[in-house]
Amino acid sequence: MSDALAPGAVIGILGGGQLGRMLSVAAARLGFVTHIYEPGANPPAGQVADRVTTAAYEDAAALEAFAASVDVVTYEFENIPTEALDLLEAHRPIRPGREALRVSQDRLTEKTFLQGLGLNTAPFADITDLDSLRAAIGTIGTPAILKTRRFGYDGKGQARLRSPEDAEAAFADMAGAPAILESFVEFTHEVSIIAARGLDGQVACFDPGENVHREGILHTTTVPARLSPSQRTDAVLLAANILNALDYVGVMGVELFVTPQGLIVNEIAPRVHNSGHWTQNGCAVDQFEQHVRAVAGWPLGDGRRHADVVMENLIGSDMERVPDLSRESDVAIHLYGKAEVKPGRKMGHFNRIIRTR
Amino acid sequence: MSDALAPGAVIGILGGGQLGRMLSVAAARLGFVTHIYEPGANPPAGQVADRVTTAAYEDAAALEAFAASVDVVTYEFENIPTEALDLLEAHRPIRPGREALRVSQDRLTEKTFLQGLGLNTAPFADITDLDSLRAAIGTIGTPAILKTRRFGYDGKGQARLRSPEDAEAAFADMAGAPAILESFVEFTHEVSIIAARGLDGQVACFDPGENVHREGILHTTTVPARLSPSQRTDAVLLAANILNALDYVGVMGVELFVTPQGLIVNEIAPRVHNSGHWTQNGCAVDQFEQHVRAVAGWPLGDGRRHADVVMENLIGSDMERVPDLSRESDVAIHLYGKAEVKPGRKMGHFNRIIRTR
Repeated sequence: MSDALAPGAVIGILGGGQLGRMLSVAAARLGFVTHIYEPGANPPAGQVADRVTTAAYEDAAALEAFAASVDVVTYEFENIPTEALDLLEAHRPIRPGREALRVSQDRLTEKTFLQGLGLNTAPFADITDLDSLRAAIGTIGTPAILKTRRFGYDGKGQARLRSPEDAEAAFADMAGAPAILESFVEFTHEVSIIAARGLDGQVACFDPGENVHREGILHTTTVPARLSPSQRTDAVLLAANILNALDYVGVMGVELFVTPQGLIVNEIAPRVHNSGHWTQNGCAVDQFEQHVRAVAGWPLGDGRRHADVVMENLIGSDMERVPDLSRESDVAIHLYGKAEVKPGRKMGHFNRIIRTR
Repeated sequence: MSDALAPGAVIGILGGGQLGRMLSVAAARLGFVTHIYEPGANPPAGQVADRVTTAAYEDAAALEAFAASVDVVTYEFENIPTEALDLLEAHRPIRPGREALRVSQDRLTEKTFLQGLGLNTAPFADITDLDSLRAAIGTIGTPAILKTRRFGYDGKGQARLRSPEDAEAAFADMAGAPAILESFVEFTHEVSIIAARGLDGQVACFDPGENVHREGILHTTTVPARLSPSQRTDAVLLAANILNALDYVGVMGVELFVTPQGLIVNEIAPRVHNSGHWTQNGCAVDQFEQHVRAVAGWPLGDGRRHADVVMENLIGSDMERVPDLSRESDVAIHLYGKAEVKPGRKMGHFNRIIRTR
């Protein structure tokens, strides 16, 4: 543990949303102090962090001061401006590292990287203009999905093409942003695997969870997922493959489509992931602590699952369900401290413990 | 839930040590905001609280401002000056209530209260001077323990009498403080039961844990405790008896001696308790969340135990064990963010998960 941060060290977290909030709590549990960097005022993570810097990612002075005050920098989201990362990295290690960010910030780069590892992805094509879209439809066919290369999340920046005639409208939806066309994959269900890699190269995976989305937003994650033993092995091997290729340090979420022909990698997220929230009530060490352990240079924790869990997100007015949920035994509630309820806003989640084992 | 606080409400916590810290995290998990009141600078709880007031319990203005900023007041320790409580209670509810504090702040009052409920305690006598001590030794005999009536914790303010000749030295140890003499109980082991009572009068108990002390400080708590089925029932009934008698709201720790003649109540603590830390890794809802649920007027959570656990405190230089502990699977580490290691100082604890069930 010579590279390990000692308790009392300061972990800097870029982003003050719910992921930063739960990372902050996990860091505190291991005796670390957290400093949140977030452009928005009163971030949810600030309520459980020792320190908050409210500043833009373009504010060089604020970034410098932040870097000087922390021992390591991590983040809760991948779309951090490159210039900010350059500046921070001159002072402190950023974990997970730059390569993971570079790859995951751009869907085209990500898909190309995954293919280069020999992993299965949906057929895709680089879309620069309407002509290239039409040509891609000719190769890939429809149905297909047009997605912006950057800054997409929770179904935003996506347009479905049911037939070639949808090309123009879908292209217009991209508003001129570089995009990729992905073939629509005929999958039976979607799973994700939350994988971690330590500073020493050790890899550990949580059990895969099965995800159901509603309106492009994760609705539930159920563990165990419906997977055959060989599919489980495949999931672990491909996650380890990705992490090792990136010399990754931290937790990553890997979304997979399950098809009769095998697993197809949908996308990777170089951070703790909504589909890993079940670990808070299913494992002694959850994904947040696992991430903190990795970025702090600690040995990875034991992520063995001790319970079957269904995680369900509380979106917008789902908050009205909290009084009823609080009466249910076997439901563990996790709220994010967001003052304002908005439609589509992730306000919290709950883990229903189905069976301990 | 008409009396229930809604997420976003502010829970004021008197005391910023590790118990306040873990209460603060539990409150945040349910969407509450916490405000810590603590005379000492940079309290451990402040690292995970939204707001900290650093002021003395004699600072009326600070107490008024604190009360005005919160929706309910709770506390991590029982020795809060009465004047401060009077002032706070004029503005906001204090939970657990004043009667629990009045009873538990004074060993003589506490023992008398417990006896009044028909519960077994060690024989005791009120000691006001050396003559009353000598008279009490005549009745109670030796070995016996002389304890200050107030402000004792972790073995402080106690003197053992092996024989009547120790009377003078033991009395001198009390430095003039009012005291009680307690008969030395021949117990086989000590257990504690962490019990909770909601605003609606509902009572729920965690499984009893078995405690081992070293140098007057809790060393380990093991669940399950060695108790017969009827002893388990007795423990739950007597805890419920105590909570109901006090119209209690919140979590209480009840320490019990196990003797061949049955259970003897050693002492009660009107707060979350060190011997309940195992619940963090043994139950879906731990003692901290249970306390927050109670004081917020929520239904109590499901405290069923899903694992056998041994909790061990990390005292002073035990912090040097953290790197090794971090490598052990089935060990969940909980550190308190205290900057300075001091002999006898509680720096953290760990829960060793022995077996999930």
